[in-house]
Amino acid sequence: MISRFPVPELKDLPEDVRARIVAVQEKSGFVPNVFLALAHRPAEFRAFFAYHDALMDKEGGAGSNLSKAEREMIVVATSGANSCQYCVVAHGAILRIRAKNPLVADQVAINYRKADITARQRAMLDFAMKVALESHQVGEADLAALAKDGFSKDDVWDIAAIAAFFAMSNRLANVSSMRPNDEFYLMGRLPK
Amino acid sequence: MISRFPVPELKDLPEDVRARIVAVQEKSGFVPNVFLALAHRPAEFRAFFAYHDALMDKEGGAGSNLSKAEREMIVVATSGANSCQYCVVAHGAILRIRAKNPLVADQVAINYRKADITARQRAMLDFAMKVALESHQVGEADLAALAKDGFSKDDVWDIAAIAAFFAMSNRLANVSSMRPNDEFYLMGRLPK
Amino acid sequence: MISRFPVPELKDLPEDVRARIVAVQEKSGFVPNVFLALAHRPAEFRAFFAYHDALMDKEGGAGSNLSKAEREMIVVATSGANSCQYCVVAHGAILRIRAKNPLVADQVAINYRKADITARQRAMLDFAMKVALESHQVGEADLAALAKDGFSKDDVWDIAAIAAFFAMSNRLANVSSMRPNDEFYLMGRLPK
Amino acid sequence: MISRFPVPELKDLPEDVRARIVAVQEKSGFVPNVFLALAHRPAEFRAFFAYHDALMDKEGGAGSNLSKAEREMIVVATSGANSCQYCVVAHGAILRIRAKNPLVADQVAINYRKADITARQRAMLDFAMKVALESHQVGEADLAALAKDGFSKDDVWDIAAIAAFFAMSNRLANVSSMRPNDEFYLMGRLPK
Amino acid sequence: MISRFPVPELKDLPEDVRARIVAVQEKSGFVPNVFLALAHRPAEFRAFFAYHDALMDKEGGAGSNLSKAEREMIVVATSGANSCQYCVVAHGAILRIRAKNPLVADQVAINYRKADITARQRAMLDFAMKVALESHQVGEADLAALAKDGFSKDDVWDIAAIAAFFAMSNRLANVSSMRPNDEFYLMGRLPK
Amino acid sequence: MISRFPVPELKDLPEDVRARIVAVQEKSGFVPNVFLALAHRPAEFRAFFAYHDALMDKEGGAGSNLSKAEREMIVVATSGANSCQYCVVAHGAILRIRAKNPLVADQVAINYRKADITARQRAMLDFAMKVALESHQVGEADLAALAKDGFSKDDVWDIAAIAAFFAMSNRLANVSSMRPNDEFYLMGRLPK
Repeated sequence: MISRFPVPELKDLPEDVRARIVAVQEKSGFVPNVFLALAHRPAEFRAFFAYHDALMDKEGGAGSNLSKAEREMIVVATSGANSCQYCVVAHGAILRIRAKNPLVADQVAINYRKADITARQRAMLDFAMKVALESHQVGEADLAALAKDGFSKDDVWDIAAIAAFFAMSNRLANVSSMRPNDEFYLMGRLPK
Repeated sequence: MISRFPVPELKDLPEDVRARIVAVQEKSGFVPNVFLALAHRPAEFRAFFAYHDALMDKEGGAGSNLSKAEREMIVVATSGANSCQYCVVAHGAILRIRAKNPLVADQVAINYRKADITARQRAMLDFAMKVALESHQVGEADLAALAKDGFSKDDVWDIAAIAAFFAMSNRLANVSSMRPNDEFYLMGRLPK
Repeated sequence: MISRFPVPELKDLPEDVRARIVAVQEKSGFVPNVFLALAHRPAEFRAFFAYHDALMDKEGGAGSNLSKAEREMIVVATSGANSCQYCVVAHGAILRIRAKNPLVADQVAINYRKADITARQRAMLDFAMKVALESHQVGEADLAALAKDGFSKDDVWDIAAIAAFFAMSNRLANVSSMRPNDEFYLMGRLPK
Repeated sequence: MISRFPVPELKDLPEDVRARIVAVQEKSGFVPNVFLALAHRPAEFRAFFAYHDALMDKEGGAGSNLSKAEREMIVVATSGANSCQYCVVAHGAILRIRAKNPLVADQVAINYRKADITARQRAMLDFAMKVALESHQVGEADLAALAKDGFSKDDVWDIAAIAAFFAMSNRLANVSSMRPNDEFYLMGRLPK
Repeated sequence: MISRFPVPELKDLPEDVRARIVAVQEKSGFVPNVFLALAHRPAEFRAFFAYHDALMDKEGGAGSNLSKAEREMIVVATSGANSCQYCVVAHGAILRIRAKNPLVADQVAINYRKADITARQRAMLDFAMKVALESHQVGEADLAALAKDGFSKDDVWDIAAIAAFFAMSNRLANVSSMRPNDEFYLMGRLPK
Repeated sequence: MISRFPVPELKDLPEDVRARIVAVQEKSGFVPNVFLALAHRPAEFRAFFAYHDALMDKEGGAGSNLSKAEREMIVVATSGANSCQYCVVAHGAILRIRAKNPLVADQVAINYRKADITARQRAMLDFAMKVALESHQVGEADLAALAKDGFSKDDVWDIAAIAAFFAMSNRLANVSSMRPNDEFYLMGRLPK
């Protein structure tokens, strides 16, 4: 079972939704279940992936210093804290691939404080976890500390927005009992 | 200060973003600060409001039994649990107007268990709070209980998706220290 | 329903209890429900209000630097943390009036860290929240910090005693499901 | 050190406060430090002990079925949960004496679920702990369960009010670092 | 770095400790770091592994119905809850091998409620998690429920003792920042 | 009842287990129930007490600066945090005797921050509690602080290992509802 909620057939989907799913299938070789689990709500599907891509498919750029791998680290660490099986397994795979590191995803998912990451990445994850778990306590001191570590205001927004987006995503996956595709478990673990 | 992050001028925004803001201003008489606080990221702005409208601007309809007021109740209750000042104040105002009830928003924000709501609404909020605070514990028993209370699968998705969307929204507002407009505090408190 | 417990008629109360209730009615125009909800236990009623007045009805004075509005801020912030609907609504009204500020009560109730208050008031509420939520962790360092912020020992006692008194009061209101009077919701929100 | 706050000399106290202290000294052979630690605030002192006596010095009576020993059990269990050294040590002594049981206080302080108490007392403490730790969750179901266990409405109020009063008392003792008198530790442990 | 504490050379170890390490190396092809990290304390090393083997190296037997794979499930689930990187990675590998299932360890580590396990295993893990996280709340009702699910008293002890032993082990690994061997990450993920 | 699990007769035990129990009985005048409650599992019994003795029966020595009384303090403080009745009562007795102090055990069990201990012992217990309650957060800063307070690496291991061992022990005692012997309650309270 992919989800506790209805999973429509590809042929019954609006054209743009189906096109998006076909595209990911061609690129990845399979359809990640999140695409199928959200497809019963096309308007939400479109907004979800537009939001996702705006946050995750950036590699540095204007004022931004977070690599794609670092963005995935945020996903994996906060999804671990939220006990989201789908997000840890699926984004753990993407993190391994983007970081070209077969170990880092499992490390970050369980306890990022002990992961093989840089001090800057550790600071990034400390902040992401605060956003995920007690955002009402975030204050000027947090932002000042991140500035001292070399994060721009745009970086801080990115970290916070990714942690916030996956706060949503984790809850959707948890409630729907979204199942990670079997393919994800091994991706990025073997040398090419 | 509206936000800890940049707030662009209306004239510097992409046309569609500006048009959306002008429209809400004409309808409400002022621009809710969330529109200004998100505008520095047009792609995220578009996705955020597309998502928001897909979830919040429905009154019943195909398979759905949640009124607009009930949707706002979910926002106010979970935003209270997340200590999100912007969302409680702004959506508290909308809840008062949509429910035509000057008291219910303050009641729901502090302790929905003692609010003047129906038993069905109480069950709806019990579930929304579980999604907001411990979604990894949601299980079949929760869904069975909701079905017994007359909620369709679509309703359950709506409750969960609204709680999840505002899990994101609360975190963005908390990190940016988004300020509720003064206008919200009194809206819906006085008889027309 | 005002309370889950018996609410006696005014005529059946001991003379001093009734006199106190009549006095507050004459002054406020209505009887706040807390007076009625506690009246079934005259000895406790007397002690409760004697204690309350000793802590709340002081404006500065010998060694004390807390205004009446600041005392109410402590009540509203800690009662929010304890999800006490009666105390947030009733003392929110009093705070608006004493601070001559229609916004501050809602801000403090949801997240005092983002309220329009002074740095000194922020420090006061940080300490009050520690007393409310984890008093066993209070130590010399907390008192030293408060002294540096200009609080006298008497001020520190006042902050702690108010947070402690409403720790009691919140629990009584929560267990009895004490209902805030409708009048409170709008008090202090409109210019005179 | 008895307290972090001023401890006045007996001779400097108002006559009624001093008389109360002298009376307890004559009865107990020593002055429990709580009397000295609160004496610097005579009005609060009077209200505190009036409230205390109204709740604790009852043995059954009109509609009430809680013995004095059971009242002390509530104090010890909830004070343990609040890590209040003064209250656990002092009221542990009183509980041993009133229950004529040298073991029960230590048992209740650490984990009342394993104490040598009756099923009815266990239910009483379950409720007292809910009042102490999450009173906003108390609902009709809790009161119905207590009624089924034979507790009158007056008993329920007593349990809640004692737990609430010591929520206050624990916080005062924790903040002031009130020191239990050495005498308490051994009281009630030896056969007479 | 294997540990924050001293890691002795094999040649400097007492004969029995070295023999145990050599044996595991011959069997596994490498020395799991926990053997090296504990070796600086030979007496504790001996007790730790004697205890470990008594609990983990049983397959059913007299009165016991827990398979070796099920024992490892308990380790992985509770170690995930304790954020113990070493134990999740190392015992995740062993679980994959013993269960002959490449997916189950990652599922159980993040949220066992959604893992591909039987209802009986789910009940086993519910209890193990209660032991790990709030053992003071365990009561007769828990044991009665386990008996109804077919667990013998010996099984219940096994579940509890394994959860308890890894409560210790997780803390040792967390404090020493014990590093999982790289070999563990891929073990049991590929078909033989 | 000593335990929810089987308690074998002395005569049915393996010789070494019986000998150990007889020895403690001769020394103490009674058999602490933990020996009886664990005896139904001889292999675990042996490992448990071997581990216990390796950690607790040291008085300083090679590189170690923790007295036996200090070791017991760690047990009492962390067992209090874990609501373990058996461990608090039994090790409280041993602490009183080893520290030759009739008050310190009750103080440490409820709130070690207010106990009559040295600043160094306070730092030791702060760390022990972090190991007991949130060991995944332990980091280099904790170890550096302990080094500054004069603790050797061996001391840090001892503190952590004792807190970890009793994390296990507390869970076993809680699940089995192990009953403290009546003798413990008074031990060490009276002058010799």
